Amino acid sequence: MEDRGGLPLYEYLYRRVREDILSGALPAGTRLPSKRALAEHLRLSVMTVETAYAQLAAEGYLESRPRLGYFAAQVDHSPAAPAAPAAVPVPPPEKVWRLDLKTNRIDASRFPFSLWAKLTRQVLSEQGTALLSPMPHPGLPDLRQAIADDLRDYRGMTVSPEQIVIGSGAEYLYLLLAQLLGRDTVLALEDPGYPKVGQVYRSSGLRCVPVPLDRQGIRLDAQRRSGAAAAHISPSHHYPTGLTMPIQRRQALLRWAEETDGLIIEDDYDSEFRFTGRPIPPLQSIDRQGRVIYMNTFSQTIAPSMRIGFLVLPPRLLDRWQAAAGFYACTVPALEQAVLARFLSSGHYEQHLSRMRIEYRARRSAVLEAFRSSPFAGRITITENGAGLHFLLKLDTRRSDGELRERGAELGIRAGFLSEYAVDPTPDMDHTLVVNYAGLDPRQLDEAMALLTELFTEP
Amino acid sequence: MEDRGGLPLYEYLYRRVREDILSGALPAGTRLPSKRALAEHLRLSVMTVETAYAQLAAEGYLESRPRLGYFAAQVDHSPAAPAAPAAVPVPPPEKVWRLDLKTNRIDASRFPFSLWAKLTRQVLSEQGTALLSPMPHPGLPDLRQAIADDLRDYRGMTVSPEQIVIGSGAEYLYLLLAQLLGRDTVLALEDPGYPKVGQVYRSSGLRCVPVPLDRQGIRLDAQRRSGAAAAHISPSHHYPTGLTMPIQRRQALLRWAEETDGLIIEDDYDSEFRFTGRPIPPLQSIDRQGRVIYMNTFSQTIAPSMRIGFLVLPPRLLDRWQAAAGFYACTVPALEQAVLARFLSSGHYEQHLSRMRIEYRARRSAVLEAFRSSPFAGRITITENGAGLHFLLKLDTRRSDGELRERGAELGIRAGFLSEYAVDPTPDMDHTLVVNYAGLDPRQLDEAMALLTELFTEP
Repeated sequence: MEDRGGLPLYEYLYRRVREDILSGALPAGTRLPSKRALAEHLRLSVMTVETAYAQLAAEGYLESRPRLGYFAAQVDHSPAAPAAPAAVPVPPPEKVWRLDLKTNRIDASRFPFSLWAKLTRQVLSEQGTALLSPMPHPGLPDLRQAIADDLRDYRGMTVSPEQIVIGSGAEYLYLLLAQLLGRDTVLALEDPGYPKVGQVYRSSGLRCVPVPLDRQGIRLDAQRRSGAAAAHISPSHHYPTGLTMPIQRRQALLRWAEETDGLIIEDDYDSEFRFTGRPIPPLQSIDRQGRVIYMNTFSQTIAPSMRIGFLVLPPRLLDRWQAAAGFYACTVPALEQAVLARFLSSGHYEQHLSRMRIEYRARRSAVLEAFRSSPFAGRITITENGAGLHFLLKLDTRRSDGELRERGAELGIRAGFLSEYAVDPTPDMDHTLVVNYAGLDPRQLDEAMALLTELFTEP
Repeated sequence: MEDRGGLPLYEYLYRRVREDILSGALPAGTRLPSKRALAEHLRLSVMTVETAYAQLAAEGYLESRPRLGYFAAQVDHSPAAPAAPAAVPVPPPEKVWRLDLKTNRIDASRFPFSLWAKLTRQVLSEQGTALLSPMPHPGLPDLRQAIADDLRDYRGMTVSPEQIVIGSGAEYLYLLLAQLLGRDTVLALEDPGYPKVGQVYRSSGLRCVPVPLDRQGIRLDAQRRSGAAAAHISPSHHYPTGLTMPIQRRQALLRWAEETDGLIIEDDYDSEFRFTGRPIPPLQSIDRQGRVIYMNTFSQTIAPSMRIGFLVLPPRLLDRWQAAAGFYACTVPALEQAVLARFLSSGHYEQHLSRMRIEYRARRSAVLEAFRSSPFAGRITITENGAGLHFLLKLDTRRSDGELRERGAELGIRAGFLSEYAVDPTPDMDHTLVVNYAGLDPRQLDEAMALLTELFTEP
């Protein structure tokens, strides 16, 4: 009992007996010395032996027979030493790009972090242990109220906090929506579109049908043919095409929903960054039949690592939601919810958005200007409608998208191509880069243009 | 233009034209006045009219024809005023119980909240905007390392941080595990068991088969007959029976997994609160073939509103995980992860657990003692094995569980019955209350016993 490497006495004894039983040195049925006898023999207290025996009995290594004592139990014999743990493949380090036009990283340095930190400290000291209490499954009432107020003031939406469900970002909300819709539901998705939307829905068992777009957005003839029971769309600013769905297609979509008892999920991604005029009103605001589930997140406007998003359910779906997904506890910590509620209700959120609109507008102009005065200006066509953090750039080239991507990788340029975002790409999508500029440092535009000049030079 | 209720001029103009088009007052094809003419007529700047027209065109209400001007577009006519929003059913207020033995609310007042708040302030000021950066999908490296260290020191598990995936609580991790296992997988679940486990898996399309328990835990004969490809179990301390699975059944389960290429999900819920001896080593620690996925959360040990849990994947499953669920971004905010990492690595977490073990042990003794000295002591049998935050209480009664539940509700007592937790309840489960004592205030034990005396009195 001397050489036990810092273990408590009872634990050392427990381990030795366990090893002897697992190795077969103490065969099944062997009667162990009485607690008193072993304690005397090892010069331990009876309590120490008792604790070790009780632990071994609790785990099934010993059987206790009344008045007879402890007996070694029958176990599979195995090597005493645990097998060396299997090697874990360490993921390769991420490639560092000289120019990354594909990242959806936003410029977090502009976020009023010290204000956020101050609000966090305030909430911590004012709410204290109340933050540890269980919260309602749809989220903190304060945050749901603050979101309803913001949607009323800035998105023209009349919604009650009871219609709002808070969740940890868009992907989690897609998971819950998949459970609301139910497996084997046929879901129309915009093609091209944001690939993760389909990835989550498909992983959840929905049958996703890619529906092509025309200049107004998702094509209703194709959507009708697909037999879809629901559609997931981004009418304000579609990714990656940048399309805004006009009122006519919106009305037609709502008619489709009414005629087919269909549902529309309006993913209002990126609607905040419109640089001319006012934001496009959401489809939800003209839905009179409760056909539209609205969703948005704070990933683009605050930071992706914040992981807060929300749904707005039409009142007629609240019972169905309750049955399908009401049992899920809210996934966002109470602290973040309380801080975001203050950030919204104090007006700081909209102030931040205003500043970011100015910042991104300037950055966008600089980027567009750099492209338009570049050596390759004559060979590109830019499609943009004054909104969002990306635009399309079509290049006049004989090379394929694959060749361009490969050459880009050689030069340290990561670029996304429109064709990558489509399940059924069409020839008119070729040679079209999706330029995400939010992470592009304006001071590095010269270098970026020089790199792109190299990439765009025909061999 | 006078009576515009605080709206900016361009927005007021935009709304009036939009209403006229939607109501049909401006029929499709009508040419609008030129910007200059309208500006002069309304005494506005041309810019104001231009902004309003551009917005209307962006939303599809106007068509711009080069050199001819703007024309009203074809839309569905609808009433100008939006329909009154549908009434939202407000959920009834939660019933306040005089005695709640069913709640899994823990006593958060014992949590070292001021320390947690201090760590939060430290992380905010030291890490600053780095907290806004995108994080690796499986979670913050610091937290994964701190969890691996804690599992090594306190659970006897040798795991690498690369095997750990952080997620927002148990239910979210079940959702991801469902996607790993795949739809239509036959999954064995302990019966009785924690109902949400089956609820999430079933909602995700898995075929859940309830498998009865014997005194060692899940019955392997029934599990084999079910054709299950995986089993989700809680071997350390089963809810609600309190069973600890002995080494023999653990070894047999691992043999089953090896023979059938099966997977075992070890839900180590509640394993921290063992009051005699040391915690039961996890099944994961004797798994040499990479058959066990371990999971646990901090909901019971810190607070349910914290929403942090984790998986430990065996190395051989990492590629499969990457393909099935690697695309999901981590759902836990970076701040909470960084704070928890410090709480763990500074030793505060295990100190808190030690204190809570002492606290709960005392509370448990007091509760058990109160039951044993109650007027109904002769009619109850308590099953408990010195672990966990609940125990079973069997009552000698002629009444059914339904009658007891109803009578309890009249008296303001909420109690869970073992039979409620079973898909296929057996007669031996009758008249057995599941007593969750973690939220029971020791100062109110006298009142609680008086209430229970009333409930237990045979009519």
